[in-house]
Amino acid sequence: MGKARLEAFSDGVIAIIITIMVLELKVPQGTGLTALAPLVPVFLSYVLSFVYVGIYWNNHHHLLQAAHHVTGPMLWANLHLLFWLSLFPFATAWMGENRLAAAPSAVYGVVLLMAAVAYWLLQQRIIVSQGRDSLLKKAVGGDWKGKVSPLFYLTAIPLALWSPGISQGLYVLVALLWLVPDRRIERALAHNGP
Amino acid sequence: MGKARLEAFSDGVIAIIITIMVLELKVPQGTGLTALAPLVPVFLSYVLSFVYVGIYWNNHHHLLQAAHHVTGPMLWANLHLLFWLSLFPFATAWMGENRLAAAPSAVYGVVLLMAAVAYWLLQQRIIVSQGRDSLLKKAVGGDWKGKVSPLFYLTAIPLALWSPGISQGLYVLVALLWLVPDRRIERALAHNGP
Amino acid sequence: MGKARLEAFSDGVIAIIITIMVLELKVPQGTGLTALAPLVPVFLSYVLSFVYVGIYWNNHHHLLQAAHHVTGPMLWANLHLLFWLSLFPFATAWMGENRLAAAPSAVYGVVLLMAAVAYWLLQQRIIVSQGRDSLLKKAVGGDWKGKVSPLFYLTAIPLALWSPGISQGLYVLVALLWLVPDRRIERALAHNGP
Amino acid sequence: MGKARLEAFSDGVIAIIITIMVLELKVPQGTGLTALAPLVPVFLSYVLSFVYVGIYWNNHHHLLQAAHHVTGPMLWANLHLLFWLSLFPFATAWMGENRLAAAPSAVYGVVLLMAAVAYWLLQQRIIVSQGRDSLLKKAVGGDWKGKVSPLFYLTAIPLALWSPGISQGLYVLVALLWLVPDRRIERALAHNGP
Repeated sequence: MGKARLEAFSDGVIAIIITIMVLELKVPQGTGLTALAPLVPVFLSYVLSFVYVGIYWNNHHHLLQAAHHVTGPMLWANLHLLFWLSLFPFATAWMGENRLAAAPSAVYGVVLLMAAVAYWLLQQRIIVSQGRDSLLKKAVGGDWKGKVSPLFYLTAIPLALWSPGISQGLYVLVALLWLVPDRRIERALAHNGP
Repeated sequence: MGKARLEAFSDGVIAIIITIMVLELKVPQGTGLTALAPLVPVFLSYVLSFVYVGIYWNNHHHLLQAAHHVTGPMLWANLHLLFWLSLFPFATAWMGENRLAAAPSAVYGVVLLMAAVAYWLLQQRIIVSQGRDSLLKKAVGGDWKGKVSPLFYLTAIPLALWSPGISQGLYVLVALLWLVPDRRIERALAHNGP
Repeated sequence: MGKARLEAFSDGVIAIIITIMVLELKVPQGTGLTALAPLVPVFLSYVLSFVYVGIYWNNHHHLLQAAHHVTGPMLWANLHLLFWLSLFPFATAWMGENRLAAAPSAVYGVVLLMAAVAYWLLQQRIIVSQGRDSLLKKAVGGDWKGKVSPLFYLTAIPLALWSPGISQGLYVLVALLWLVPDRRIERALAHNGP
Repeated sequence: MGKARLEAFSDGVIAIIITIMVLELKVPQGTGLTALAPLVPVFLSYVLSFVYVGIYWNNHHHLLQAAHHVTGPMLWANLHLLFWLSLFPFATAWMGENRLAAAPSAVYGVVLLMAAVAYWLLQQRIIVSQGRDSLLKKAVGGDWKGKVSPLFYLTAIPLALWSPGISQGLYVLVALLWLVPDRRIERALAHNGP
């Protein structure tokens, strides 16, 4: 199977995921602006998930560019990643409709975590396929975001059972980490960093 | 990331948006032709949004053709545009189901305005990436439609709170401005223009 | 705009249309095989529409292959065709859920007719763009199916108000005309023809 | 019609099928983790169908790679396969929502069987198009999975009426047969085989 194929199929699935999430933004019964009020948390969680899927789409391409050819395990690792991404609409809608509820916020974190794990597994498959002097392995060595993100999720998931708001704040923080261009953040961390 | 990639992903998202809008055209309970009557405004707002998404798809391609390469900010400006376009199905359905209501008509205008702003931001990112002698910058200089459209939306949004019908008329007018080939309109404006 | 672009976008929209039609096949409440009985007409109208969209997808490609380049009017004629195809899920579901009702069967025919008209308009745009010695124009000259189909629809639409079953039979007949390879039909018509 | 075209359209349809299946995972009313309990069987049948569609996508590409050119019958055999795959979301949801019910489990098997038959028909069309010394024909000669799978489905379908659980176990088994890389299984069969 050609790499272009795998990319095109993944693009298709990701394009559908990012778009059907909006179907959870149900048309309100009322006609006043106040009818939109209960939709605000649904809208905000849609924005957050849109950004996450956008980040995955972006990183997925850079990852596949590093792959020379497509192996069977790589193909299934990729489908495994798409599987967890496909659960974003469900997790987003449940959290959005129950803004301050504990379980939906924890489940959202579990889906984020599993997607991160699936991404890491795909990365490993590509590194293995590149053999000893894998360029991707070296590039990933300095990938602090990829290492820090799962720790944030692992912290946020149990925390959601006590304080869903803080967990949601952590999910936003991780998204911002990936959104803001690297150099600026790294400098900021160097100056004021923990 | 290659430009072909960005175009293919954007095409996928736009194809899904333009198609899922039709899901809001709910199958009526009755079986007579009169059962279709309440669907007429839903259908008309579907037609309007279909034309708008078609115009965006068309212009989006011409815009990306001007880009030599894809930068990080350009990629996110593009996702930002897709985000606002993804709200078309919601805004279309709410306005369609409440034809003469003020708030839905105003919100529809807000989504149109934000999509126009997002389009302009993407344009700016491409101009910046082209450097000093940007050909796109020169081309955009004479783009009176791009400059007039947001003014129409800005007028229509507050107006919707008094007269939704006039606002909807303005949305149709802007769509027609983009649909009718330029030269004919420009000549008409030269002859009978304001 | 390149032709490949127009084809890819059309393919995307058609792929979505052919797939979301199945969403109207609602999961039944019961768990016995008898629970499937009310779904049979919905299923049959899904099969019919699947075949129609498949025929359009097939013919659309042959049509675009004849086009040398993409013009503005061609692009909008193509979107106009996609618009009518996008109404297939609605018309299919309404007719499927009200098998023997007159209006849904007539409306289904109207959508078929408008799609055929839109296809013809697109064909004309491509012929015009090819200039005087248009090869497509010659090829279309012998296209008896394209000429006969609208006549069948025009007959079936008013007929549906008296006998929906006969109209539905005509829709099936037209689909079969397109499905069966030409030569065999033409020979059959030559031997036993009307 | 080019082969790339057929592949891209099939990819699009399969990408949509694999993604809209998740829409059946309805957002629960409650906000506790216990609200997820009734979703467990729906989730498991989603996982199973996701894997099946993934297997079909994978095999479909290898199959089309063997085709030199696209013929009319091949195109319709391909649409026929996509038709049965498009019924996966329906069959998955019905079985998922009625875990231990007989009819939904049998119907799921029928859809699996028909997809396998459609795949085989497409394979035959490609073999025929390759003429006498078809390489695909030779390759398929040793394809024991393709021959065994329909037998499993044919066993599972009537069995579902007595013991849906065993049928579902057989569906999982067939999926595993295809997932596990060949050589390992073949060695296992050679050592401990029946």
